[in-house]
Amino acid sequence: MNDTIKTILSHRSIRKFKNEPLNNETVETLVKCAQAASTSSYQQVYSIIGVEDKGMKDKLAALAGGQNYVAENGYFFVFCLDYHRHMLAAEMTGSDIADTVESTEGFIVGTADAALAAQNMAVAAESLGLGIVYIGGIRNNLPEVSELLQCPDHVVPLFGLAVGVPDAQPGLKPRLPFQAVFHTNTYKDDSVLKDQLQTYEEETAAYYSERTGGKRTAGWVSQMMSSMAQPKRTYMKNFISSKRLNNK
Amino acid sequence: MNDTIKTILSHRSIRKFKNEPLNNETVETLVKCAQAASTSSYQQVYSIIGVEDKGMKDKLAALAGGQNYVAENGYFFVFCLDYHRHMLAAEMTGSDIADTVESTEGFIVGTADAALAAQNMAVAAESLGLGIVYIGGIRNNLPEVSELLQCPDHVVPLFGLAVGVPDAQPGLKPRLPFQAVFHTNTYKDDSVLKDQLQTYEEETAAYYSERTGGKRTAGWVSQMMSSMAQPKRTYMKNFISSKRLNNK
Repeated sequence: MNDTIKTILSHRSIRKFKNEPLNNETVETLVKCAQAASTSSYQQVYSIIGVEDKGMKDKLAALAGGQNYVAENGYFFVFCLDYHRHMLAAEMTGSDIADTVESTEGFIVGTADAALAAQNMAVAAESLGLGIVYIGGIRNNLPEVSELLQCPDHVVPLFGLAVGVPDAQPGLKPRLPFQAVFHTNTYKDDSVLKDQLQTYEEETAAYYSERTGGKRTAGWVSQMMSSMAQPKRTYMKNFISSKRLNNK
Repeated sequence: MNDTIKTILSHRSIRKFKNEPLNNETVETLVKCAQAASTSSYQQVYSIIGVEDKGMKDKLAALAGGQNYVAENGYFFVFCLDYHRHMLAAEMTGSDIADTVESTEGFIVGTADAALAAQNMAVAAESLGLGIVYIGGIRNNLPEVSELLQCPDHVVPLFGLAVGVPDAQPGLKPRLPFQAVFHTNTYKDDSVLKDQLQTYEEETAAYYSERTGGKRTAGWVSQMMSSMAQPKRTYMKNFISSKRLNNK
């Protein structure tokens, strides 16, 4: 097993960082690694906003639901779906690309492009001994986050990525069983999946029970059902549409 | 610069593979690397379908627009957004999670989860000396692809990933200028971006011109405007909605 695969397989999200800011060279390397990722049809439908201002980081932490590691880390990146550059290019050349940009297909492209870039950055950061955590919480209050970062139309912040020197070493969280995620040729039968879910429920219940001295015993299935029963961020469809995306 | 970062920075998409199938151990390692990626709120909203059947690979290649490297490679993976497991869990526990699953927020989560997992796999594959290319072309005919792979409701194939021993060594394609992608604190001014786009247009025009002996001289801006003027996959919004996703 090579170092890259070792790095990838030892990923855990870090939610406590030492007070050691990343230097400029590291930030630049991480952004360049993000840029090196594949991108749909060479479109590069994303931007990265590095939030360095302490006041802004504090605001983002509050908007993300009070996660203090949004403010306290080595560096905080925000990954955005971004068709604004393409719209500027259209303006410069007198082109009409609105039907492409505003389509659900375009929304898939931009979300995937941003995520591919981000994961390159995450792996690169971890290869340097840094820790990372994705912050989907910025979508708790996306209109406010978007305004704070001064994102124009056709740009939507999708998630943050906090990076820094780890000040905690949490355990590896068990993933879904291999057979529940990987299918061969065709999507597998429900009966097999149900068995896998049952196995995983027991495995994760044991994992949580052990880590909490028996206080927490809900496994993955129970946990997911409980959190997913209350829909979150129900404004999203309308907000994304108001940014002129995903509406065609 | 460590090996992981070197691997990431030397990425180029490979569109010609040697006839050397990946062995089972490598496939398993790659899937495990994909599973190790971060996932929104531990939800793991994706599945990976390994397409091994030659007849199916040929069909996929045709559906993706005649890209022969979809059929001819070391292994072909399809990454799907997948809430079907959660829906099975809901059935097993008598829960109602439809509003979460069918939301645009859920669609973002699933698309990002699938892409994070895929990029882990891509980096892992490249660290082993293998080449990769993403196949967004499976979205050219997604209803047919979805039926071929027997995907139930709440599951959508998003893109393929062809992996194999490279039989070509294309050059590195120049990415958008660093300053066009990276912003500090707030999204930058249009005037700066327009300058960057102009620079990039010239850089990419020179790149194409050199590689084609002067036959092709359109840079990135011209290329994007030309391809984006014709919206592609305009059925996507309705199809995704018919799979009961992105409609709330």
